Amino acid sequence: MVWDAWGVAAAHAPLPEQIRALIAQVFAVSGEPVARRAEGEVELRESRSTAAQREGLAALVGAEHVSGEHRDRLLHAGGKSTPDLLRRRRGAPQDAPDLVVFPADHDQVLAVLAYCAEQSIAVVPFGGGTSVVGGVEPDRGGFDTVLALDLRRLDSLGDVDPVSGTAVLGAGLTGPQAEQLLAGHGLSLGHFPQSFEFASIGGFAATRSSGQASAGYGRFDDMVMRLKVATPTGTLDLGRAPASAAGPDLRELFAGSEGVLGVITEVTLRVHPVPETTCYQAWTFPDFATGANALRTVIQHGAAPTVLRLSDEAETGLNLARSGDVGGTPVGGCLAVTTFEGTAAHVAARSAEAQELLTALGGTALGEQAAREWEHGRFAAPYLRDALLDVGVLCETLETATGWSNIAHLKQAVTTALGDSLGAQGTPALVMCHISHTYPTGASLYFTVVAKQAEDPLAQWARAKRAAGDAIVDAGGTITHHHAVGADHRPWIGAEIGELGVRVLRAVKDAVDPAGILNPGKLIP
Amino acid sequence: MVWDAWGVAAAHAPLPEQIRALIAQVFAVSGEPVARRAEGEVELRESRSTAAQREGLAALVGAEHVSGEHRDRLLHAGGKSTPDLLRRRRGAPQDAPDLVVFPADHDQVLAVLAYCAEQSIAVVPFGGGTSVVGGVEPDRGGFDTVLALDLRRLDSLGDVDPVSGTAVLGAGLTGPQAEQLLAGHGLSLGHFPQSFEFASIGGFAATRSSGQASAGYGRFDDMVMRLKVATPTGTLDLGRAPASAAGPDLRELFAGSEGVLGVITEVTLRVHPVPETTCYQAWTFPDFATGANALRTVIQHGAAPTVLRLSDEAETGLNLARSGDVGGTPVGGCLAVTTFEGTAAHVAARSAEAQELLTALGGTALGEQAAREWEHGRFAAPYLRDALLDVGVLCETLETATGWSNIAHLKQAVTTALGDSLGAQGTPALVMCHISHTYPTGASLYFTVVAKQAEDPLAQWARAKRAAGDAIVDAGGTITHHHAVGADHRPWIGAEIGELGVRVLRAVKDAVDPAGILNPGKLIP
Repeated sequence: MVWDAWGVAAAHAPLPEQIRALIAQVFAVSGEPVARRAEGEVELRESRSTAAQREGLAALVGAEHVSGEHRDRLLHAGGKSTPDLLRRRRGAPQDAPDLVVFPADHDQVLAVLAYCAEQSIAVVPFGGGTSVVGGVEPDRGGFDTVLALDLRRLDSLGDVDPVSGTAVLGAGLTGPQAEQLLAGHGLSLGHFPQSFEFASIGGFAATRSSGQASAGYGRFDDMVMRLKVATPTGTLDLGRAPASAAGPDLRELFAGSEGVLGVITEVTLRVHPVPETTCYQAWTFPDFATGANALRTVIQHGAAPTVLRLSDEAETGLNLARSGDVGGTPVGGCLAVTTFEGTAAHVAARSAEAQELLTALGGTALGEQAAREWEHGRFAAPYLRDALLDVGVLCETLETATGWSNIAHLKQAVTTALGDSLGAQGTPALVMCHISHTYPTGASLYFTVVAKQAEDPLAQWARAKRAAGDAIVDAGGTITHHHAVGADHRPWIGAEIGELGVRVLRAVKDAVDPAGILNPGKLIP
Repeated sequence: MVWDAWGVAAAHAPLPEQIRALIAQVFAVSGEPVARRAEGEVELRESRSTAAQREGLAALVGAEHVSGEHRDRLLHAGGKSTPDLLRRRRGAPQDAPDLVVFPADHDQVLAVLAYCAEQSIAVVPFGGGTSVVGGVEPDRGGFDTVLALDLRRLDSLGDVDPVSGTAVLGAGLTGPQAEQLLAGHGLSLGHFPQSFEFASIGGFAATRSSGQASAGYGRFDDMVMRLKVATPTGTLDLGRAPASAAGPDLRELFAGSEGVLGVITEVTLRVHPVPETTCYQAWTFPDFATGANALRTVIQHGAAPTVLRLSDEAETGLNLARSGDVGGTPVGGCLAVTTFEGTAAHVAARSAEAQELLTALGGTALGEQAAREWEHGRFAAPYLRDALLDVGVLCETLETATGWSNIAHLKQAVTTALGDSLGAQGTPALVMCHISHTYPTGASLYFTVVAKQAEDPLAQWARAKRAAGDAIVDAGGTITHHHAVGADHRPWIGAEIGELGVRVLRAVKDAVDPAGILNPGKLIP
C-alpha cells in the first residue's frame, strides 16, 4: 500500500468530471487536487531503537528480518482512517515504529514477544495495515521503544480438510492470497470486506471483520473454527470442535482481541466449494423503511442470499453503490442488491423464493446490471475517498448495528448527530447510509459522510465522530459492527461492555501480557 | 423432580417386558426392581448454617424464601447423572446444601452474592437441577457453609420484540414455561434438549445446552443475544447488537460459565414464529458411515432441516430412538430422522431438496411414522435409565463432537475405550451412538452405554468414564458437546483449552469473584 492513501498507486485516479462538478457546486471547493509528498521526502520521528535491541531481535528472526529503514518505518506508521490520511498529508514529522520485525512463524513470534516483554519494548502486531480505527498506531505506551510486528511471512496454507470444509491459514495471508491458495483445492473462504485486497487473515480475526457476503457465509468470526495465538506468556490453541460446551468459549475472547491480548498466528477457517454459479438481482424500493422491512423478511425467512444490501435514498441518489456510475443517473428510490451462490438448483430455488418475497414487500426488480456494477466496484470506494480528500473534501465512514425494530431510530439519530455537528461547524454534510449485513434479529448501518474540509479537518472530524459515537450509544447501537475498537472507539467501550466488563478485559490482559507490551493504547481504556 | 431419579413420579414405570427379558438374558440380571427410599427416610449431612446467616439472608429475600428444611435441602442435593442417582439409592447419608435461598429478582441475587462474599458462604446457582456432570453438587470449597441459590422465582417474560424476533426471559423459567409464555405472542424458542421439561433458561445458557432442533434453530448459545449476569462484584449486561466488532465477545465468556463466574439472571433470546407446519421424514441407511455422509451433505448444502439425526446400527437395532417400541422390531440398518418446520412453502421446498440428497446418498425413505415416534418419546430416555438402574443395570450417556472427517475415528475410539474398560471389569457393555447435532464442519456423537452393574457401580463407571474421556481427548474430540464441564469433566479441561487457557479463566474468576464463593469445584481446575 502507498504510505499516505489507500491501496496501490496505479489504481489512483483523479475525480470523475461529474463528481468534480458536483462537489465544486455543493461544497464550493475548487476541485483541484493538492500535490502529495513522495515517500523519501517524509520526515519521521527519530527511531529510539538501540543497537542491542536490533541485535537481540536479529538473533531471533535473522538480521534481514529486522528493519529500521525509513521506508519500512513509514509503511508501518499506522492505518487508513481519514484522520490517518489527513495527518500524513500534512508537512509535520510522522510518528512511526522504531523498528519493523518480520518473523517467519509462530515460534519466532513467541520468541519476539518473550524478548520484548523482558526488554520492555512495545509491540504493535501488523497485518495489512488497513485499520480505520487507529488499531495499528505506533503507540509506545509507557515504553521507550515500539516495534511493528509484520506478519506477512506467516503466509502458508496448512491442512485442508475438504470433508469437514475447513482449512488452516497463516495469519499473514492477504484476502487474495488466501482465496488463490484455496482455489487450488476448489475451495473458497467467501470473505470480501472492502479491505479484501490488502487486509490479512490474522487481522480479520483480530478485528471481527465482516465481508460483503456475510449473509451467505457469515461474519469472519463465524468462520473461525480454531485460533492459534502467541502471547508473552505462551501459546493458546483454542477450538477443538465445531461446537462445544466445555465452558466459556475462549476463541471468542481472542477473536476481536486486536493484538492487545496476543498475536494470532494461524486460523482454522470454515470454507466451502467454489460456487457453481452466482445469480445477481438488483431491486429498487420506494423508501428505506420499505426496503429494510423486505430485507428483514428475506433473512428471517431463511431464503439464504449470499449478498443482501440496501442503500438509502441519499446513497442511491449519488449512485454510490455503483462505482462506475457515481454521480450519474440514479435508479431512483432505494437500491438493493442481492446475490445467490451455490449449485444451480440451490441458487434457482433460493433466488425465486427471495424474488417472491421482495416483490410482495414493495420491491421492483431491476435485473442483473446494477448488482453486477456494485460487485465490480465494491473495493473501489476508498480510492474515491482519496480523490475527495485531495480536493479539500472530508469523506469518512462509520458503522453500527442494532435490532430490526431499532433500525429507523438509530439511523435517524446518527444522521442527525453527524449533520448537526458538521453543520454547526459551518460545513454542512451529506450523510448517506446503507444496510450491508443482515441477521435474523437485526442489521448493520454503514454511514458515509461528505463535507467540505474545515481549516483543521482533524478537529472537525473529531467533533463529528464524537457526536456520532455518543448518538450510537444513546440510541442502543454497538459502537462498531466490523471495524473494531482500536484507539478511536476506546471512549465508548465502557458504554458497550460496562465498567465490570472492562475490568474483566484488564484481568485477561494481565494474565497473558503482564508487562503490558502488546499494542498499547488500543481496545482497553 | 423426584429426589433420587429423573422427572416426576407419575412418569416412572417398570421396564417393558421385552426389555426386561432382553437384559435378563444379556446381562444376567433378575429384572426385579429394588425398592427405593421415600424422601422422609433419607438421612442428610447436618446443616452447618447458623441462625445469623439465615437472618442475614432473610433480610435480603424474605424469611419465607430461605429454607433449611429437609425436603428443600434434599431436592437441591445435586444433579441427575447416573453416579448421582446411584449415590442417592445407597443407604449412606446424603450431602446437601446447608440452606436453599429463593431470590425474587436480579437485585436480590446481587445482594445475596455480596452478602455471601462478605460472610464466606459458598453459593451453588441452581436452575432445574438437571446437570449430568456434577454441575450443581453442594461443594463447600474451602468454606464452612454452602447454599443453593434456586432461581425459580425469576420466571417472568420481559420485553418481546416480534420485529427483531427477540424476547427477554427470566433465568428461572423452565423450557415448557418459556414456550408457553412465548406462545402467547405466537412465538417459540425451539430449544428442546432431553432436559426440556425441567431445565431452566439460565441453566441452558450457563451450560451451552443444545436442543434436538439445533439444525434449525441453533444451539442455545447461538440464540443468546444478551445476558444479564450478577456477580459478587456487580452486574454485567452483555450484548448490545446482533453482531459487533467491539472487542472480545464477553457474552461468550459468561455463556458456559456454569455459575462459576456469575449468576445469569436474564437472557435475551432469538425467537421465531410458531411454525406453520412440520414435515416428518424417517430414513434408513445401510450403515453409519453412509448415513453420516448423507447428513453431512444435507447440512453443508444448506437444505435447512430442523431436526437431523442418525442412530448407529446398535441403537437402531434396539429401537432406542423410538421409545414406544424399544426392544421391538427395528427398522434395520441405521435410522435417521428429519423434520422441517416453517411456512408450508418453505417446508415443501426444503424437505424435497433434502429428500433428493438423502435418496441419492443411499437413504431409503421410511415415511413419517418412525420420525413421529422419535418425537413423541424424545424426553423419555431418562425414565428408561431409571428403570434400568433399578434392576441392577448400569446405563449412562456421554457426548462429544468433532469435524466430519474425524467422526468415524472418534466414534471407534470412544466405543473401544468404553467396551474395553467395562469388559476388563467383567461387565461387557453394549455401546450405542447417534449423531444428533450437525454443523457445516462437523457433528456431535452421543453415546449410550449399558452394562451389568458391578458390585461398586460408582467405581465401575468412574473407570469407564475416565477411559472414554481420555479417548475423546486423544482422538481430537471435545470433552462435552452440550452437557458442560461441571465437576465431572474438570480433569480434561486443561487438555481442551491448554494450561494458559486455564490461567485466563482463573484470572477472570478472580476479577469477578475474588472471594471464590461461586460454585466451588466446577469448571476451573
